[in-house]
Amino acid sequence: MDHELLNQLLKPKTIAVVGASSVPGKIGYTVVDNLLKSGYSGEVYPINPTATEILGLKVYPNIKDVPAYVEAAVITVPAKAVPQVIEDCGQKKVKGLIVITSGFAESGRRDLEDQIVEIAHRYGMALLGPNIVGTLSNSDKLNASFAPFLPLNGKASLVTQSGALLIAIDAATYTRNVGFDKLVSIGNMADVNIADLVTWLDDDPNTTCISLYIEGLRDGRQFIEACQHAHKPIIALKAGVSAHGAAAAASHTGSLAGAAKVYGAAFQQAGVIGASDLSNLFDRTLALSLQPPMKGDNLIIITNGGGVGVLATDAAEKFGLPLKFAPEEVQNELKKYMPEFGSAKNPIDLTGQAGNEWYYDAVRYAIAQPWVDGMVVLYCETAITNPTEIAHGIEKALKDAGIHGKPVTVSFVGGEKSVAAMSELIKVGIPAYQAPDMAVNAIVSLREYENLSHMVAESAAPCAPSNQAAAREVIARVREQQRLTLTEIEAKEIFLAYGLPITRTLLAKSENEAVELAQKIGFPVVMKIVSPDILHKSDAGGVRVNLKDTASVREAYRTILTNAKNYKAEAKIHGVAIQEMAPWGTEVILGSVNDPTFGPTMMFGLGGIFVEVLKDVTFRVAPVTRGQALRMLGEIRGAPILSGVRGESPRDREALAEVLCNYSHMILDLGDEIAESDANPVLVYEEGRGLKVADARIILKKK
Amino acid sequence: MDHELLNQLLKPKTIAVVGASSVPGKIGYTVVDNLLKSGYSGEVYPINPTATEILGLKVYPNIKDVPAYVEAAVITVPAKAVPQVIEDCGQKKVKGLIVITSGFAESGRRDLEDQIVEIAHRYGMALLGPNIVGTLSNSDKLNASFAPFLPLNGKASLVTQSGALLIAIDAATYTRNVGFDKLVSIGNMADVNIADLVTWLDDDPNTTCISLYIEGLRDGRQFIEACQHAHKPIIALKAGVSAHGAAAAASHTGSLAGAAKVYGAAFQQAGVIGASDLSNLFDRTLALSLQPPMKGDNLIIITNGGGVGVLATDAAEKFGLPLKFAPEEVQNELKKYMPEFGSAKNPIDLTGQAGNEWYYDAVRYAIAQPWVDGMVVLYCETAITNPTEIAHGIEKALKDAGIHGKPVTVSFVGGEKSVAAMSELIKVGIPAYQAPDMAVNAIVSLREYENLSHMVAESAAPCAPSNQAAAREVIARVREQQRLTLTEIEAKEIFLAYGLPITRTLLAKSENEAVELAQKIGFPVVMKIVSPDILHKSDAGGVRVNLKDTASVREAYRTILTNAKNYKAEAKIHGVAIQEMAPWGTEVILGSVNDPTFGPTMMFGLGGIFVEVLKDVTFRVAPVTRGQALRMLGEIRGAPILSGVRGESPRDREALAEVLCNYSHMILDLGDEIAESDANPVLVYEEGRGLKVADARIILKKK
Repeated sequence: MDHELLNQLLKPKTIAVVGASSVPGKIGYTVVDNLLKSGYSGEVYPINPTATEILGLKVYPNIKDVPAYVEAAVITVPAKAVPQVIEDCGQKKVKGLIVITSGFAESGRRDLEDQIVEIAHRYGMALLGPNIVGTLSNSDKLNASFAPFLPLNGKASLVTQSGALLIAIDAATYTRNVGFDKLVSIGNMADVNIADLVTWLDDDPNTTCISLYIEGLRDGRQFIEACQHAHKPIIALKAGVSAHGAAAAASHTGSLAGAAKVYGAAFQQAGVIGASDLSNLFDRTLALSLQPPMKGDNLIIITNGGGVGVLATDAAEKFGLPLKFAPEEVQNELKKYMPEFGSAKNPIDLTGQAGNEWYYDAVRYAIAQPWVDGMVVLYCETAITNPTEIAHGIEKALKDAGIHGKPVTVSFVGGEKSVAAMSELIKVGIPAYQAPDMAVNAIVSLREYENLSHMVAESAAPCAPSNQAAAREVIARVREQQRLTLTEIEAKEIFLAYGLPITRTLLAKSENEAVELAQKIGFPVVMKIVSPDILHKSDAGGVRVNLKDTASVREAYRTILTNAKNYKAEAKIHGVAIQEMAPWGTEVILGSVNDPTFGPTMMFGLGGIFVEVLKDVTFRVAPVTRGQALRMLGEIRGAPILSGVRGESPRDREALAEVLCNYSHMILDLGDEIAESDANPVLVYEEGRGLKVADARIILKKK
Repeated sequence: MDHELLNQLLKPKTIAVVGASSVPGKIGYTVVDNLLKSGYSGEVYPINPTATEILGLKVYPNIKDVPAYVEAAVITVPAKAVPQVIEDCGQKKVKGLIVITSGFAESGRRDLEDQIVEIAHRYGMALLGPNIVGTLSNSDKLNASFAPFLPLNGKASLVTQSGALLIAIDAATYTRNVGFDKLVSIGNMADVNIADLVTWLDDDPNTTCISLYIEGLRDGRQFIEACQHAHKPIIALKAGVSAHGAAAAASHTGSLAGAAKVYGAAFQQAGVIGASDLSNLFDRTLALSLQPPMKGDNLIIITNGGGVGVLATDAAEKFGLPLKFAPEEVQNELKKYMPEFGSAKNPIDLTGQAGNEWYYDAVRYAIAQPWVDGMVVLYCETAITNPTEIAHGIEKALKDAGIHGKPVTVSFVGGEKSVAAMSELIKVGIPAYQAPDMAVNAIVSLREYENLSHMVAESAAPCAPSNQAAAREVIARVREQQRLTLTEIEAKEIFLAYGLPITRTLLAKSENEAVELAQKIGFPVVMKIVSPDILHKSDAGGVRVNLKDTASVREAYRTILTNAKNYKAEAKIHGVAIQEMAPWGTEVILGSVNDPTFGPTMMFGLGGIFVEVLKDVTFRVAPVTRGQALRMLGEIRGAPILSGVRGESPRDREALAEVLCNYSHMILDLGDEIAESDANPVLVYEEGRGLKVADARIILKKK
């Protein structure tokens, strides 16, 4: 969406409140009151056909009566009156519509919602909502909402799909001591969506971190692209990841997907950092909005208490950034700032005897060491130290060290004094937390941000040339026959068009042809019934393997046809597939679904018990880069199988990654046609020997 | 430890402070000051050879000079002076020693620590510490510590191994609003240990929940037993669970164990609820100290915000208590307290329009429904409601409903007003949290407590009669030969003595005997070299399987001996084992280690990739009950394998559970002898067909 239009919507020079009221308690009153109280510098025009004055402002009966330019309108009239108001706004050349009113798609009135969007678009207006609390901005002194006050001032900006949560979070910014510049309620996202706001906030000079509360995206791909292009950390809490969503999915891959896994994959691809819960969203937002990314894995922890040091060490491992011992020269220097029974290994335990000086010296020295990529400073409130002084010592040490570009987080465990000291640290840009694991988790998010940025920067070029036209020809043929399920031979033709290494498979329509093709392919061969009406070929007695000579092929041809007819007399039979018999290899599975939010999405897992018993699979939204494909191979619990276990040689992971990459381009290119697909089994051989897709399945979308 | 003696230690009638000082800032001053400030009603006697008066109290040069009975002494003199002070205390007939002084085992002076314990025991005194902050009790108005004040008053009591953390937590009780009656610093646990305090606090009328911060237990079994016998909820945070501990372990089972897994198993067996981190320890302690256990799985959530409702639903699933829809009649009634667009399914969404009345009505009705086992009430601060009034509504509803024995937790998301309202709720015994997932996690701990209580109540009787004497005879024979490693035949003799279903295995010392024994066992047979000097039988060419006739047995006998001699010329050879060839079954592994903390501890897992690649194993401290054994089978990720997958019939889980149970009694009975053992593979057959231990290994302790 146009940047200037969003400026007009979210930081308008003048605002009308349509549905303004003189009755305290009414939303139309609260919005006008909030605009005035927040110190908004532009003109505010209350619109109400019956009132004459509200809170000292002149009231106009219709927005068209305002004798000046109105850039944005906050709309609080009942739902049924909204279309006419928007029509009026359009005629008045208003640019931005903040539609607080509810009673649209969320209450089954999608028609009314479509109608207001249509009017807004006709006049080139941007529409935020409907069904929202409004929008708030500290830097613009703008509270265009019915939330009671501007949030605690800070550098993050929040976009939320839950209005109730916005109001609650607004108040909580003060008690949690996490500041925001903007809070935007996005509601039904009838027009302006999260992707639009991510792009806009990325350009906002007052925002350093974009924080999202997501219940469900409408256009997942636009979201991914917007986030990939952003230059600021984005953190998202996805609500609604419990099982009921996945249970409804019909297909195999679908049933393994579920919102949590697919959103998790999409966030990673988008470079979006995840939040595990509401507190974690606050905690990580604070760090991401105040501190630089962490460029390496070397985390140093400085503490005055062994207990909190151990808890932080446990947390570092739990959150994926295990501690290492500091280099000897660093240890030797740090030993100067602690008694003999302290520890300089990491965590650096200055002991309970540590006062301001030791903290100052240790922090100042450690942050400047090239080995150190990031630092967590812990402090246990003691009877002999003053938390405020410790905080000042830490602040001064960081300042005096003059090191920029390395993140620091802090945790003070204690009472009121510690809380006050942490508040001061936050004010000078040092995130502080009430428990050591939270400080560790926060710095881990800065490491994740750095890692995700590198991943997002990877090129997504297809790994092999493809022949989309050939693939579409196959699909057209199937569509002509009013079918949705492709035969294995048809599916493999499409796979082949995308350079996927299928086992050679030819269709025999007679016994003699079967023999001829078997000789062409070379013995031994596999033979399978080819019929769009027989999905479960084995159950129908339609599969024979390891056929070593012409006699076996002849016998198998006859048996397969007989079995198929006995199984389903009316089945339409294309013939019998004669197939190269791939040697044994490690079985893996590729699959795809067309996710309602993200579109073509692929799955990878090991075959057999790994997928069937352990559900050990991983997902990515297509396309996947080579780097992502390699990460997929490493993400499954059974990953060591591919690296070689029990004395077996490593599998050909490079070739497998290339296949994942090509497969992802196949499902993406043909996303308008393919509903789901799988390659099962795929046999992976040792390094340098590649792999073979032994069976393939494609189901088309209903059209 | 004697209950009365602990009373004298922890709630003494009179106290001496040995090492009392008149210099503010010194620990010997702080302790006297704290005793006076805390309102302690007993006499306080400062002891110092040079001072005459401290804080208005008469000072005695030696404790023996005090002209009255002294029940306990707080000792703050330097470490080297402590033995003489304790000697003096003993002569003075002091009962309890609170040894704050550090510089004992934690600094390498185990000798000095042993010495003071010896003196204390000689005089029948109990010793807390050394290396502690002291002990605090609200109900006794006793601050016998150098922590600055008594904690926020409450019903939980905390025992901590970290003194620094005690001081920090003491202050944090006020900011986190979690009250405690007692805080006890346990330090080096030279005498009084955590188990002693669990037992003592279980009898303490002012404690409703025992909260533990554990770095490392000394006697794990005593801890488990003390906790099993307790009648109050016990919650523990185990610090120090990162990998380095496990890496040092030598054996296979040992390397899979690690502190986290073994402590986790021990906590479960002890009926101890785990805390994931420091905040979680506070959160769960609050709920466990104020609310009753949750008797069933039906959790109802009442909310005024869809967003927090969804977050709570996600949390319920994440923490293992997934929501179910409320029964239709409950839904119908609840629909009366919400607008049409609300939801009565669960979460019960009263919507943002909900005021005090709807909350009151919904809470009062829902808590009284037999279907409901527990309730989480969520509230998002809105512009139209007052958090305090909502809190009063909830409190009154619960009171008016008159339902006891069902837990309720609350979360108010908002600012200062919400924080204040939650504080009031906590005061009347309703745990309240700043985020919905925390309220859910807290109520889940009450469900866990109920489940653990049932588990602990299970009988631990051995499943089968055993012949310990026979087993010890085998071990004696091996010890006579100066060996630690048993041969397979010897190990199986011991297994057999504990009723474990081994494959029948007989030792042949000649070719003719081999034939004879093979005929006795029945063909086909397996043959294996038996030599205490050959551990890896296959590598030595010492194993032949599927031998179907006498000729093969003769040939195998000769080959195995030749191979063994070629492999290791000096190997002492007992002969060749002739063994029943067990039919194929699902491979599982049993193993045991002698854990330094908990003693004999067993492992169970599926064989092959499950143990080798996925480390998919589970642990229990021996003995395990039948119920625990069945839970072990269900805990591994590969559990579905045992229930039957891919059309296979279920495995004989009952028989397997019995074997686990017997195995656990074997390693427990022989815990003084066996260092580690395993049964690998164990072949498990379909239901009713039992299982067979195909190979067995036992390694004895060094003596």
